[in-house]
Amino acid sequence: MFDRASGLDDELFRLRAEGLSPAERAAALDALFRYESRQTDLLLGYQCNERIDCAETLSRYLDRHLNNVGDPFQSGSASFNTKWLERAVLDYFAALWRAKTPHDPDDGASYWGYLLTMGSTEGNLYGLWNARDYLAGKFLLIDPESADEARAAASNGGARVVPPRLVYQQAPAPESQPNARVPIAFYSQDTHYSIIKAMRVLDIRTFYEVGTERYPRDNPLAPGKPWPHEVPSVGGTNGVGVIDIDALTTLVAFFASRGHPILVNFNYGTTFKGAYDDVEAAGAALLPILRRYGLDEREVHYDPRDCRKYDVRTGYWFHVDGALGAAYMPFLEMAHAAGRITTRGPNFDFRLPYVCSLVMSGHKWIGAPFPCGVYMTRTKLMLRPPSRPEYIGSPDTTFAGSRNGLSALVLWDHLARRSYEDQIRKALYTEDLSAYAERRLRELGQRLGQALWVERAPLSLTIRFRAVSPALAFKYTLACETLYVDGEKRQYHHIYVMEHVTRERIDAFLNDLAAPDAFPAQEVRPTAPAHESHVAGREGRLMHVPHTGRSFSG
Amino acid sequence: MFDRASGLDDELFRLRAEGLSPAERAAALDALFRYESRQTDLLLGYQCNERIDCAETLSRYLDRHLNNVGDPFQSGSASFNTKWLERAVLDYFAALWRAKTPHDPDDGASYWGYLLTMGSTEGNLYGLWNARDYLAGKFLLIDPESADEARAAASNGGARVVPPRLVYQQAPAPESQPNARVPIAFYSQDTHYSIIKAMRVLDIRTFYEVGTERYPRDNPLAPGKPWPHEVPSVGGTNGVGVIDIDALTTLVAFFASRGHPILVNFNYGTTFKGAYDDVEAAGAALLPILRRYGLDEREVHYDPRDCRKYDVRTGYWFHVDGALGAAYMPFLEMAHAAGRITTRGPNFDFRLPYVCSLVMSGHKWIGAPFPCGVYMTRTKLMLRPPSRPEYIGSPDTTFAGSRNGLSALVLWDHLARRSYEDQIRKALYTEDLSAYAERRLRELGQRLGQALWVERAPLSLTIRFRAVSPALAFKYTLACETLYVDGEKRQYHHIYVMEHVTRERIDAFLNDLAAPDAFPAQEVRPTAPAHESHVAGREGRLMHVPHTGRSFSG
Repeated sequence: MFDRASGLDDELFRLRAEGLSPAERAAALDALFRYESRQTDLLLGYQCNERIDCAETLSRYLDRHLNNVGDPFQSGSASFNTKWLERAVLDYFAALWRAKTPHDPDDGASYWGYLLTMGSTEGNLYGLWNARDYLAGKFLLIDPESADEARAAASNGGARVVPPRLVYQQAPAPESQPNARVPIAFYSQDTHYSIIKAMRVLDIRTFYEVGTERYPRDNPLAPGKPWPHEVPSVGGTNGVGVIDIDALTTLVAFFASRGHPILVNFNYGTTFKGAYDDVEAAGAALLPILRRYGLDEREVHYDPRDCRKYDVRTGYWFHVDGALGAAYMPFLEMAHAAGRITTRGPNFDFRLPYVCSLVMSGHKWIGAPFPCGVYMTRTKLMLRPPSRPEYIGSPDTTFAGSRNGLSALVLWDHLARRSYEDQIRKALYTEDLSAYAERRLRELGQRLGQALWVERAPLSLTIRFRAVSPALAFKYTLACETLYVDGEKRQYHHIYVMEHVTRERIDAFLNDLAAPDAFPAQEVRPTAPAHESHVAGREGRLMHVPHTGRSFSG
Repeated sequence: MFDRASGLDDELFRLRAEGLSPAERAAALDALFRYESRQTDLLLGYQCNERIDCAETLSRYLDRHLNNVGDPFQSGSASFNTKWLERAVLDYFAALWRAKTPHDPDDGASYWGYLLTMGSTEGNLYGLWNARDYLAGKFLLIDPESADEARAAASNGGARVVPPRLVYQQAPAPESQPNARVPIAFYSQDTHYSIIKAMRVLDIRTFYEVGTERYPRDNPLAPGKPWPHEVPSVGGTNGVGVIDIDALTTLVAFFASRGHPILVNFNYGTTFKGAYDDVEAAGAALLPILRRYGLDEREVHYDPRDCRKYDVRTGYWFHVDGALGAAYMPFLEMAHAAGRITTRGPNFDFRLPYVCSLVMSGHKWIGAPFPCGVYMTRTKLMLRPPSRPEYIGSPDTTFAGSRNGLSALVLWDHLARRSYEDQIRKALYTEDLSAYAERRLRELGQRLGQALWVERAPLSLTIRFRAVSPALAFKYTLACETLYVDGEKRQYHHIYVMEHVTRERIDAFLNDLAAPDAFPAQEVRPTAPAHESHVAGREGRLMHVPHTGRSFSG
């Protein structure tokens, strides 16, 4: 297809059975590079840092295959790995996120993690998978059949060797608690679509689904009214984008009182608004409820015939999607402690005893040539055999088999070159520049005498505003989102102020926005109640405006 | 941890709050590069091609972020993508695999696909997810509630705009067919562990699980005996590694006759033996059975109140994990057609009307600096709203959100530089050299007067043999596998003859194997029946020998 805006055409890249001539190949690659350079030079709309300095370190590795297949803490036979660097990067973030280091398989309190190949989508999937199976009472056990065989063989003089076989087993629910193995998921209306997709992949039931099916008239937020699809955010669609802890608490209490284990996804740097859920306050509000219903700690018995066979597990799992915010908030916290900035974000990391898993993208605030990131959890929460001698673990602990070994080099080199002080300065730089961009946009609205709907969540790196013309959206690579605000359907764009963005680029953008056709008129019509139609709006946009884009996450 | 064999130490790479000095950083990176170079120069044991020529094309992109977020056939607003090249690569493989090109959303028979970020593990997960939901009667529909709201709004003069909302809905099973929405999975004992993991992630029931639970005495392969965990391979553990079609047919018939939809994973180039399942023969044997039980085509009604609302779907899904073999077998087929080789592999691609999805890794036969690959299916099989005007699709069609945009460049450049003739020669080269290595290994066994257990499946690029010393395994980066053969527990290594392997490297390896300590004595003890204990053996190996490695796949 020919894409007018890019000037590129599928025909230029078409492959043939005879291959392409050197001239054809060069022409295609040069056209692509010119295009990518032009777009990158003006990029304002996505949360990926384009100030990347990988070429020096990585070029010599491009003709090598680097693959970190398997567990980062076991070398394995695939020697072409970069796991030394992977472990160094994991230790770095474990310290930054107040997890217990180093990883020690015999210390359940220590951290475990790995570097992602897909970005945060993979980490979210992996964390929610672990959460689902942990809460649903799944176990990895030795197949009793093979253990029996082994015992029989041993008593017969050891003539037959039968190695143990692992099976994936479901602990039954106690008769008095039929819901004890059915986790219910909660996430806010500002949550990225990849979390919703993960729920489908993993077949995790949400409070909306179970509420609508089993308790259609009992929505505790609005008795008699339909259940909301997602946990409301504070202030609805035009709020700053953080989860409403009161609403969350009410919803969780409803299901906890009915014996369901509780799975909550928090966002730390939402995709469109860049807002930070207050994970600490939410945990403080939820823990007493969980405790009341025996969901803080519970015995999960996997063998109904033997009451001594059980695991002590929490009845909740709090996952933090920190794709964006987990990368820099620790540095803003340091800046705050040193009096270099007046505010900081809420706590979100492993210093909170109830945080179970955390995910961050490497290609966002840090910057990388391809998607990458970090998954981290506590060793004791990994789904693996209990730590008793008769049960033994499998090292296939990551989501992917083959894993991108270059990512470890990218992240390691970035961190090796920079001190905490460098990172603090970078965090302050992007914060300052975000505040500058917000101020300039507000001034523009006043100057134009037009409602530009400028909004920025506290400490957010993104500022949203009335959608601009398609030409400007393409020029600056801006993502669009439709929100239903004050009874109106509004189309927004946003900019993300990452490290590569300069004051000059913001000024140039503002200059373009002052042109008379910068903000096309919108059909602003009244619509459904806010918290219902936001969901509809998001999907409506995805369905109707496939070419004008959407926000993204790793 | 210090790794004696590599000579590398975690301490060398430890990151600090103040960063590393340029000298420390250079020392660490140089040590790593020397290590990687040494390992790569001798690599024989893994199915990844180390003849990679990416540096020339890619170096200038290393300081850019390239990301193909979303559907390959929709540009989206994230303009820093390489989707033109992605589509060219997809078209190339669609033609090679006899799928209908080009992709056309309105032509269900045309192909659809995307380039993977994780390698084949991702493609297998995605294919099996789609299969699960397709067979289980899941639908993406407009929420009737929001449609009602929209109609009400329209009849009220259009004062309220309510965009449609997609819901993920489950078609109920007909009362007479309680199993009609419960797919049962089948895969052979030579299947890669990532498929077994995908079953857990996706919570897909296997014939072993459902058979053991519901029909404990009815195993049709051995009435009264326990069900096998996996479909037997022809000749058991010491066979060539292909699925036993008779056994598969018997097992499928058992569940098809009870109304279960059927999900089969075929392997095309198994991980340890490099064997090719005969997908065409299996399909020919299974289709009459599926037809007999109404599982070839069936109406899936999603609205019990309206019998006109249904989709026509197959009651089976055949997925092909062609991580290795799908990359080169089409070229061997061309060579065979031209009389340049006497045999060829069985058909496996979209010319077979019953192949539903196919996966290939890009870092294996082709060669790439990081994991990558291709997922392909038929447009009509994608889980999306039926093609009626009131239902509309979402473009979030891929597994990951963010996708590695450099991968498209890697694969495109590889294909642009090479003609079919180049690929044919490369395929013949690796086949010839595999045959040479097999011959040399057999000769060595004769010369040493020792049973080296040398085996190679027809046209396989891997040769397996009695395990060598740990020093040699590390030197040549060899993967280990324990098999139970003729009542004995045997440890094997294998080599993979990829493009970077030369006759000289094979000769040097054979030279090392002639040393007196090359093949350590093994404790070869009699053990359990072959098809049972192979599974145990594989997991036993994973559990007991974490540091000596295992095969890998993408």
